[in-house]
Amino acid sequence: MNVTPQSMHFADRLPLQSGASLRDYSLKYETYGTLNADHSNAVLICHALNASHHVAGVYEDQAKSEGWWDNMIGPGKPLDTDQFFVIGVNNLGSCFGSTGPMHVNPDTGRIYGADFPVVTVEDWVNAQARLLDALGIETLAAVMGGSLGGMQALSWTLQYPNRVRHAVVVASAPNLTAENIAFNEVARRAITTDPDFHEGHFYAHGTVPKRGLRIARMIGHITYLSDDVMNEKFGRQLIAATKDGTQRDYFYSTLEAEFQIESYLRYQGDKFAEYFDANTYLLITRALDYFDPARTYGGDLSHALARATCKFLLVSFTTDWRFAPKRSREIVKALLDNRRDVSYAEIDAPHGHDAFLLDDARYTGVVRSYFDSVAQEVSA
Amino acid sequence: MNVTPQSMHFADRLPLQSGASLRDYSLKYETYGTLNADHSNAVLICHALNASHHVAGVYEDQAKSEGWWDNMIGPGKPLDTDQFFVIGVNNLGSCFGSTGPMHVNPDTGRIYGADFPVVTVEDWVNAQARLLDALGIETLAAVMGGSLGGMQALSWTLQYPNRVRHAVVVASAPNLTAENIAFNEVARRAITTDPDFHEGHFYAHGTVPKRGLRIARMIGHITYLSDDVMNEKFGRQLIAATKDGTQRDYFYSTLEAEFQIESYLRYQGDKFAEYFDANTYLLITRALDYFDPARTYGGDLSHALARATCKFLLVSFTTDWRFAPKRSREIVKALLDNRRDVSYAEIDAPHGHDAFLLDDARYTGVVRSYFDSVAQEVSA
Repeated sequence: MNVTPQSMHFADRLPLQSGASLRDYSLKYETYGTLNADHSNAVLICHALNASHHVAGVYEDQAKSEGWWDNMIGPGKPLDTDQFFVIGVNNLGSCFGSTGPMHVNPDTGRIYGADFPVVTVEDWVNAQARLLDALGIETLAAVMGGSLGGMQALSWTLQYPNRVRHAVVVASAPNLTAENIAFNEVARRAITTDPDFHEGHFYAHGTVPKRGLRIARMIGHITYLSDDVMNEKFGRQLIAATKDGTQRDYFYSTLEAEFQIESYLRYQGDKFAEYFDANTYLLITRALDYFDPARTYGGDLSHALARATCKFLLVSFTTDWRFAPKRSREIVKALLDNRRDVSYAEIDAPHGHDAFLLDDARYTGVVRSYFDSVAQEVSA
Repeated sequence: MNVTPQSMHFADRLPLQSGASLRDYSLKYETYGTLNADHSNAVLICHALNASHHVAGVYEDQAKSEGWWDNMIGPGKPLDTDQFFVIGVNNLGSCFGSTGPMHVNPDTGRIYGADFPVVTVEDWVNAQARLLDALGIETLAAVMGGSLGGMQALSWTLQYPNRVRHAVVVASAPNLTAENIAFNEVARRAITTDPDFHEGHFYAHGTVPKRGLRIARMIGHITYLSDDVMNEKFGRQLIAATKDGTQRDYFYSTLEAEFQIESYLRYQGDKFAEYFDANTYLLITRALDYFDPARTYGGDLSHALARATCKFLLVSFTTDWRFAPKRSREIVKALLDNRRDVSYAEIDAPHGHDAFLLDDARYTGVVRSYFDSVAQEVSA
């Protein structure tokens, strides 16, 4: 499936939850499949930290350009683009094409940098709703996302309950725990205390806070994987084993990578620092920290979710310690307290939080059968 | 109990596991209680990452100078210094008085810095054994340690099986998992990529890699605590709640600390960076990474522990995800495979890895009753 990214400009000011606003902005997006005659088969995909509007398909003449959820979405796939019109949209504040900190602030004529306003999950959903307006989509057959994307899907059901018929919330949580926030904070401090950060205006200094980005990404990777899968993939294996299969002696170095897990993390950090924007990292982790729909209801999630009227599929993964199954179960319980129609699958997968992006027959089977039933409600 | 640190110089070259050696060195240590006539009541305490020879008691005229295990060790305490002669020793490579990277390399006349040789758990034990020789102690009534200190206690039983009658190994592991190594590696990279690190020779540059040390400590603190205790202590509490108890609105800032967990971690990081040496941090985390007594036995821990002949008490804590109970159980199993005398207590405590330093009646009760039985074997 060859796909082409598109961009839409919005001239109307977007008020933000913080009280600030964006005077105008663009959203980068992609669509897959065909919108049916009564516009009832649209599915919006919301992305997580390190992803974008490029959800499925490939770019012409670009090898290895599969979208980040290409195993899940496409012709004949669990979310079947032969039946559904699927939209991927890049969030505000991102570094993949939608208006973000690397763009020029129309109010000052200078690059936003650290002056890009803090955006929340709710702000993203509002911006996504305007895109749907422009695409002529009043009601979504479904909204779907994993991790931070799942938070957006959940927020859709609260902000626009009449515009969503189904929400698929994968490996997500009703808010971050103190430990989740703690990991985000360490990553942010690594970036903001990097001398190349220059208070977020590093573009003007011709620098990139790569040291901080590397550390942030290394921390992230540890939390995406389970202890078990790390042990299975890397264990205590040294980088250079001897040829006869016996382990060589240690290098005895505090500076050189010695174990395979170390070189893996260094590689992931180096790669990430080459393409990801530091201000975007701060913005997106802060959106994660801030999401908490129960907050204005005195912490009562059941009360907060009473607004949601659509049907739900929630999926979690047993070894996900970042957004553990018990966090999904909190959402399930709150929805059931409101007598909502909820399906819940807890998948016994070894891959930790990463599992939501990986192939697992039970996981994709659950998603496929859920969308099969959604398709029954949609006119051809 | 007023105590005074002492220092002992060793002029004999100490060969290290890496093949390098230390030409001469000093060990800082403290003792509590009285060595009995036949020198049979000595207990050696091994310390973990951020600790020292100052295990118990206070320094005269110094408020809040309690040793790091003062709740466990002292007159009438679980390890009773009215009955035992207890020794705390600072490890080589530390920054608290024993020879380390901040000292002058006698071979070059310059400060060691990054040239201080990599030291292992086994090297520390060898150095400790020489201190015992000098103190006239042939056999320890017990060796005891938590976390990395527990690894040293375990290693004592393998390196000097005839010099230890009991080993008390608390919140420890037979080696680090890939995830453990990963956290150490991120912390090390934060330090070594700090521009103030200068390849480990920052003393000569008049700098301290405080940014890196702060990040390292923040990561450490996350792993010392359990998810549960973090939620209980900090949850999603904001730093400045309004006076009437209702929560204020968010600041909406990516740079300012917003949640209490953030300011807690920043404070811990700042404090640590003021006193801890960066090269010591690298050395001690590497000693953790390298410890793996089963390594030279093809990973067969039972085979590796066959050398140990003493009696053991192992203690773990249910919410410790850094050195989880299952890691202690691996040691217990390997010892039982060798028909060794092992007591094992798995304490249901909420505090994560930190629990080994905290008061818990069940924990201190187990240690007290174990040492009561050790005391039966010791002449008055």
